[in-house]
Amino acid sequence: MAVGWFYLSFYSLWFLGLMCIILTIYWVQLWHGGFAWDGTLLMFNYHPVFMVVGSVVLYSAASLLYRLPQSWVGPKLPWKIGHAMLHLLAFILTVLGLVAVFQLHRRSRITNLYSLHSWLGIVTVFLFACQWFLGFVVFLLPWMSVWLRSLLKPIHVFFGVIILSLSIASVISGINEKLFFSLNNATEPYTNLPSEAIFANSLGMLVVVFGLLVLYILLVSSWKRPEPGILTEGQVWRPGFPLPVWDGAESREDSPRKALGLARKTTQ
Amino acid sequence: MAVGWFYLSFYSLWFLGLMCIILTIYWVQLWHGGFAWDGTLLMFNYHPVFMVVGSVVLYSAASLLYRLPQSWVGPKLPWKIGHAMLHLLAFILTVLGLVAVFQLHRRSRITNLYSLHSWLGIVTVFLFACQWFLGFVVFLLPWMSVWLRSLLKPIHVFFGVIILSLSIASVISGINEKLFFSLNNATEPYTNLPSEAIFANSLGMLVVVFGLLVLYILLVSSWKRPEPGILTEGQVWRPGFPLPVWDGAESREDSPRKALGLARKTTQ
Repeated sequence: MAVGWFYLSFYSLWFLGLMCIILTIYWVQLWHGGFAWDGTLLMFNYHPVFMVVGSVVLYSAASLLYRLPQSWVGPKLPWKIGHAMLHLLAFILTVLGLVAVFQLHRRSRITNLYSLHSWLGIVTVFLFACQWFLGFVVFLLPWMSVWLRSLLKPIHVFFGVIILSLSIASVISGINEKLFFSLNNATEPYTNLPSEAIFANSLGMLVVVFGLLVLYILLVSSWKRPEPGILTEGQVWRPGFPLPVWDGAESREDSPRKALGLARKTTQ
Repeated sequence: MAVGWFYLSFYSLWFLGLMCIILTIYWVQLWHGGFAWDGTLLMFNYHPVFMVVGSVVLYSAASLLYRLPQSWVGPKLPWKIGHAMLHLLAFILTVLGLVAVFQLHRRSRITNLYSLHSWLGIVTVFLFACQWFLGFVVFLLPWMSVWLRSLLKPIHVFFGVIILSLSIASVISGINEKLFFSLNNATEPYTNLPSEAIFANSLGMLVVVFGLLVLYILLVSSWKRPEPGILTEGQVWRPGFPLPVWDGAESREDSPRKALGLARKTTQ
């Protein structure tokens, strides 16, 4: 059952993330003429796509890497590198999303960073950059002490969650703003809820649902790599680190922990 | 030091929350003519104020009630009632905020719930209503089993965090939307960043900072009421409930836990 829940959530996330990307591309392709890297509105169309792909879907995939039971056994370093590389890719796409809108603004002589959406967005990207850099220095470079890593890990996880939440808030305000622009002088205004409005509003809500599922897995579920103190016989539980629990399934044969040979050892 | 941090956070939250409320009132008073309960744009002005007061500041205060060390000793019921009543007041203000905008729409024959901001907002209010009702039934009415309460508590806390995050996303998209409306045909448009735009954008960012501090205290800090299993001698730690830790201050004389006579008993 526990394995069933895990894979149901896993495939639901894949499906929802993929749908967010496909629907964003479909929106700008169908209603806004598609893509071109030329400084026009067609270049702007890359902005929502890169932001949804980079700062939401790929960011979430990178954040959830340690929730894969396969990452719980063997050395942690390859998974750390994977986590950092996926986040770097997400960051590069996010920056390309910024370039797309800045290029349009430059060519059309529109002020950069005037709306609250853009203020929130740029602060989020700045936090993302800081988070990646500090994460790289603290958790990937070899000279940092285990003590410092343990101290900073909850902060790293907290800001990971916060950056995703702020990204989703930026996407919501961005879709809202774009619809006010594009439907401002349309024959069917936003207030009439034309098909584009229903489509893009639904896309925004889908991004929210995707984000909620990611945050649920990050914050509530116990699908976590066990801390070293738990798996080694004789070691004691360290305050501040919750004991990993596979939701009510420790004694069952279908527990992924058991399937991976991770017998549960607690200090109780 | 721990007590110092606690009261610094506590007073920072009071200050930030109060500033969010004052600046929202100042914004609509100075740039939008103040308030009147008459179905006009002056009635709409209650919308941002009630939403910031109800769904963000008061909601946060209600959520953080159990983080007050005073709530850790003695019977829990009075604090539960306080938690429920404060949330009920926050909910009533939120509903009044909805009434303010629906009344304007009715009088001006504008479609209700057409923008993504409104979709997200109404879903958030619906979740808030469900959360309050289920919280009341499960945690306040006496006939629910301790087992069911323990099972549902992490879900209740998770949705509490999610509703606050969605409220903040709604506020951000709402301020953004309002500025596009009010500065659309202004002599100084939004793109020129007139004083109202800078003021309201800053207000939006202040709401975000306030929310981040609340979420930090809710998710990361250990300022929590200890679980009964911890305080009663002989009882063992139950999986799924982290041991309460006053950040690195267990052995210090200035720990609020010690000040309140809550000697730490663990299962180690």
